[in-house]
Amino acid sequence: MRKLSLTAACLLLAAPALAQSHVVQYHPGPNDLKYTFATAPAVAHLKSGDTLETNTVDCFGNVIQTPSDTLAKVKGDNPLTGPFYIDGAEPGDTLAVKILDLQVDSNQGVGALAPGFGAINTTNYTPMLNAPLPERIWLYPIDHASNEATFKAKDSNFSVKIPLNPFFGCIGVAPAGGEARSSIVPAEFGGNMDAPEVRAGNTVYLPVNVAGALLYMGDGHAAMGDGEVAGTAIEVPLRARVQVRVIKGQAIHWPRVESDQAIMAVGAYRPLDDALRIAFTELVQWIHNDYGLSDLDAYQLLSQAATIHLTEMVDPNYVVVAGIDKKYLPAHK
Amino acid sequence: MRKLSLTAACLLLAAPALAQSHVVQYHPGPNDLKYTFATAPAVAHLKSGDTLETNTVDCFGNVIQTPSDTLAKVKGDNPLTGPFYIDGAEPGDTLAVKILDLQVDSNQGVGALAPGFGAINTTNYTPMLNAPLPERIWLYPIDHASNEATFKAKDSNFSVKIPLNPFFGCIGVAPAGGEARSSIVPAEFGGNMDAPEVRAGNTVYLPVNVAGALLYMGDGHAAMGDGEVAGTAIEVPLRARVQVRVIKGQAIHWPRVESDQAIMAVGAYRPLDDALRIAFTELVQWIHNDYGLSDLDAYQLLSQAATIHLTEMVDPNYVVVAGIDKKYLPAHK
Amino acid sequence: MRKLSLTAACLLLAAPALAQSHVVQYHPGPNDLKYTFATAPAVAHLKSGDTLETNTVDCFGNVIQTPSDTLAKVKGDNPLTGPFYIDGAEPGDTLAVKILDLQVDSNQGVGALAPGFGAINTTNYTPMLNAPLPERIWLYPIDHASNEATFKAKDSNFSVKIPLNPFFGCIGVAPAGGEARSSIVPAEFGGNMDAPEVRAGNTVYLPVNVAGALLYMGDGHAAMGDGEVAGTAIEVPLRARVQVRVIKGQAIHWPRVESDQAIMAVGAYRPLDDALRIAFTELVQWIHNDYGLSDLDAYQLLSQAATIHLTEMVDPNYVVVAGIDKKYLPAHK
Amino acid sequence: MRKLSLTAACLLLAAPALAQSHVVQYHPGPNDLKYTFATAPAVAHLKSGDTLETNTVDCFGNVIQTPSDTLAKVKGDNPLTGPFYIDGAEPGDTLAVKILDLQVDSNQGVGALAPGFGAINTTNYTPMLNAPLPERIWLYPIDHASNEATFKAKDSNFSVKIPLNPFFGCIGVAPAGGEARSSIVPAEFGGNMDAPEVRAGNTVYLPVNVAGALLYMGDGHAAMGDGEVAGTAIEVPLRARVQVRVIKGQAIHWPRVESDQAIMAVGAYRPLDDALRIAFTELVQWIHNDYGLSDLDAYQLLSQAATIHLTEMVDPNYVVVAGIDKKYLPAHK
Repeated sequence: MRKLSLTAACLLLAAPALAQSHVVQYHPGPNDLKYTFATAPAVAHLKSGDTLETNTVDCFGNVIQTPSDTLAKVKGDNPLTGPFYIDGAEPGDTLAVKILDLQVDSNQGVGALAPGFGAINTTNYTPMLNAPLPERIWLYPIDHASNEATFKAKDSNFSVKIPLNPFFGCIGVAPAGGEARSSIVPAEFGGNMDAPEVRAGNTVYLPVNVAGALLYMGDGHAAMGDGEVAGTAIEVPLRARVQVRVIKGQAIHWPRVESDQAIMAVGAYRPLDDALRIAFTELVQWIHNDYGLSDLDAYQLLSQAATIHLTEMVDPNYVVVAGIDKKYLPAHK
Repeated sequence: MRKLSLTAACLLLAAPALAQSHVVQYHPGPNDLKYTFATAPAVAHLKSGDTLETNTVDCFGNVIQTPSDTLAKVKGDNPLTGPFYIDGAEPGDTLAVKILDLQVDSNQGVGALAPGFGAINTTNYTPMLNAPLPERIWLYPIDHASNEATFKAKDSNFSVKIPLNPFFGCIGVAPAGGEARSSIVPAEFGGNMDAPEVRAGNTVYLPVNVAGALLYMGDGHAAMGDGEVAGTAIEVPLRARVQVRVIKGQAIHWPRVESDQAIMAVGAYRPLDDALRIAFTELVQWIHNDYGLSDLDAYQLLSQAATIHLTEMVDPNYVVVAGIDKKYLPAHK
Repeated sequence: MRKLSLTAACLLLAAPALAQSHVVQYHPGPNDLKYTFATAPAVAHLKSGDTLETNTVDCFGNVIQTPSDTLAKVKGDNPLTGPFYIDGAEPGDTLAVKILDLQVDSNQGVGALAPGFGAINTTNYTPMLNAPLPERIWLYPIDHASNEATFKAKDSNFSVKIPLNPFFGCIGVAPAGGEARSSIVPAEFGGNMDAPEVRAGNTVYLPVNVAGALLYMGDGHAAMGDGEVAGTAIEVPLRARVQVRVIKGQAIHWPRVESDQAIMAVGAYRPLDDALRIAFTELVQWIHNDYGLSDLDAYQLLSQAATIHLTEMVDPNYVVVAGIDKKYLPAHK
Repeated sequence: MRKLSLTAACLLLAAPALAQSHVVQYHPGPNDLKYTFATAPAVAHLKSGDTLETNTVDCFGNVIQTPSDTLAKVKGDNPLTGPFYIDGAEPGDTLAVKILDLQVDSNQGVGALAPGFGAINTTNYTPMLNAPLPERIWLYPIDHASNEATFKAKDSNFSVKIPLNPFFGCIGVAPAGGEARSSIVPAEFGGNMDAPEVRAGNTVYLPVNVAGALLYMGDGHAAMGDGEVAGTAIEVPLRARVQVRVIKGQAIHWPRVESDQAIMAVGAYRPLDDALRIAFTELVQWIHNDYGLSDLDAYQLLSQAATIHLTEMVDPNYVVVAGIDKKYLPAHK
């Protein structure tokens, strides 16, 4: 029924184009930040193959700086940098975004407990009559030399170092059908996927829904546990270098990620059961179309060799990333 | 509200007792197999500290041997070896089962596509009007020298080797409240958790609900992908050596697993959302009671450092294992 | 795939047999109550066509009598009367239970708020870190003359009368596969469906899984709102008169209910999404097999004329009853 | 935590204003239809108290007229009439829309089976590997004299009449936070709730998120079964007369409906479990704030007297309407 034939890997191997790629610099001011993934005026234009150097503020707009700062200071969650218009991208194409470099752009990260948010709190979408958990802020000093953040318990003297693994919590394009979605939502257009897979070295594929694709990024995480269960990672601003590429005439329905070692399909919905079903039906199609296994052989092979990464169960949609190591697949067609 | 204080790790360190432990051998005949976790006559008695040497048949009762064998030959899913009565175990205690050794007991494993079963098939509990997927069997030759199984596609010539990682799909005790549960069900008593965490080197903790605990094992897997999405792993008989230990006066509500490196709590329910909530509330309590962090500090730390393993989304309940590396925790109390 | 052809309505019209039916009386003592649906020794035998006169205690075992009684006094939830062995019932048959009469057997009903129970409380299967709601008991005086119970607010002077609509919260048979299930669980065997459809005048159909079917009843409700959202109805003991009938060679997979006006299929699972899917796939099959519409015509007709009754979202499985008025159906085949 | 105090009923009783209300007429041309609930230029302005006379096309844009028409002709689902700017409505207010009259504006309705849509089909958000159900169209002749539509089976000669009960499947306002949502989505702003409660005689309350509220309507249904399980009702164009009223300084978080007899709160999310939790926590708050019962008394009373209407399980979010008859409540404050 669906025709998904993504030859992204092949196109990316066509490396000579990289040498001539331009570098575009863009650094947003406070009034340039966006709070929706939407069809909006672009802040810069990029050509397929161009490299973008930019930066993002943290999910709180960088306003939580001291232990006495409260969430009431936050103007809007997940301020986004963008949108970037990719010349030539049209609905029905795929946008490939290779993350070349990500650096934590602060000496401190922030974690919070926000009433109405979290996997084992009552929330706006899983409300109960129980009293809410209190608001709390944890500050995480960041040591750039050792590449570690430090968790400091608030109710005891315990502290422990956590290795940095920076990634974009938010990366996405303008949604289809004229929709505009809050920057806290992950969905078909990408968005707040909170997926550590969006790290340096990996390539993110996003469906192009409008002319120019309109790429946005934000919500940097210095490190995060699976599930982001209390509702935040170690939230930080980031400096980023990414390369964009338009894959013409190749449509995908949901975001995908590719590393040197693995292919990964993203499902974002509720309950997690449905997020998983989306991710795996997409992954079966990907394997079928690009690697040539039949649907049922692909399904059986995944039963023995798939990886599942449950990235978050705290946003309006939950996210499951289903993957498989390329060493288990036939050669790419 | 709940008082969970598990000092299992400490008890297991009291290693001298191991030297005097008895070894009990038990090998079931075809009529000795069980199909429920229930209060039933024991096949053997063990003392706390004893080692059990036993074996299990595969989830099909070893009846699928050739490409022409069909699921119609299967008498019952997941035949179990047991139950084993652990002397002195009483309701309110915890049973620790250390997996000392697991060996694949055949030269071939079996994978199946069974109508009504699977994460992206219509099933008995997620039924649709769509036509069912067909039944299919894949046989996996096992190479004991290289420790690999071979996947062979049925619709093409592709084949690939998958490393063995043997574990019990089923391990559990008699349920509470006089219940008897099918061997395809995972729940509070353990059961069909399909968790690779139940591998050699790790210790499984189970709540004791009846005198003697009544331990059962089965459903050996030579290897399995996350989620066991097509409904089976590489299904094999196993030879096993496990050591049991009764932790008196320590109650747990759900199964737990401990490795040298990590502690892990199991949640088993539907939807996955609730399985995850169970696993994480249990893990927060475990950290609070045994490692001394406050609930909210534990919750925040897990948001940055937890691991989630979604073991299966195909059984009557789905299973999430939430864990954390001990290096991120204070010293055990 | 499934062949469900239930001609129950026809058989029940064969009324002459009713005249010769025996009446069996059975009234349990405190030690006769059961707490699981299981294969257990029968308390009485009935022939197909016989009428049973019996009674049930309330879900608390009748121990909550005054405002100072607490749930700590409850020995076990949902004590059951039974099991009744129906002569001639064999696996693959269907048991029809016509509810002839139900009377509230007390002058007071009980409602409770039990920590860990309720649709908008944190619960054992949807646990959160939030503090639990407090335990509370509401007593409902029952006026047999006006056929009403009275709700009395505990935090104000408000009171209001609620009409009685007595029904069995629990009705079921021994489960398949040697399982024994707690009396708080609804599932394929019936059980704690909390369905007001189990009222006088209606017929409940249950799958026969073991010889004699082994019928149980309990958990009388004087009245209940949709969803039983706080976890209890107006809980009462009941006096009952029911007629049993074995429908030979007709298998059903899930419970069904028939009134003079409507046919109704029960789905019991989590999440509600799956309970609904079960109920509607069963109802489509029922209409197809017994009323002759094609599956797709039945599905379309239900989209315009179905009724959905969400009976409870508080038990270990949630229950959806999908029905259709017979006036919208072709003549029964 | 939330302060919801809606005195809508009182305001509506201040009936004298009705006499002076203006009547605004608006009838959209084909290019005036909208496909998102969004902040967009208004097609007309209304004052609080004004009456609007308008019409809507059916969910297919009126393009399915003969048995040979296919869904490929449909330009966009659920074309909307609007938006209407209500003078004086500001964020934090509530918009009350009283449905004064609704008439089916055609002699035929349309039902469809659309691949990827339906409660017991595989869908875009609950995808499976199974083959999809086929596309099919049912046409329903409408008899305005008898007020009935006729279902005609496609695979047999059966036909049956279904009474008309016209309502708006879509009614909503511009979402909060700059979002724009497809007209197939129900959520906090209302939208595609598919709730028969949006019928003549009832009042719908919607949160005002932007200046002018920006009211939209569409997706008329001549009749619909609970759950709209095959994905469509009897889809029709409608002629409508509605009266709008701004309730200043009263905020609600989710849509509400009020009839002469009952108050009803809407929850729209996935899974149904969460839609139900939203609806009931809102209803408890409504009863607490406007009728004066304590939260726990309200919760207990709902357990005995609530109604649940599961309106649809086919849209991107599922909808539960939780209600209670006013006769069970104290006097409105």
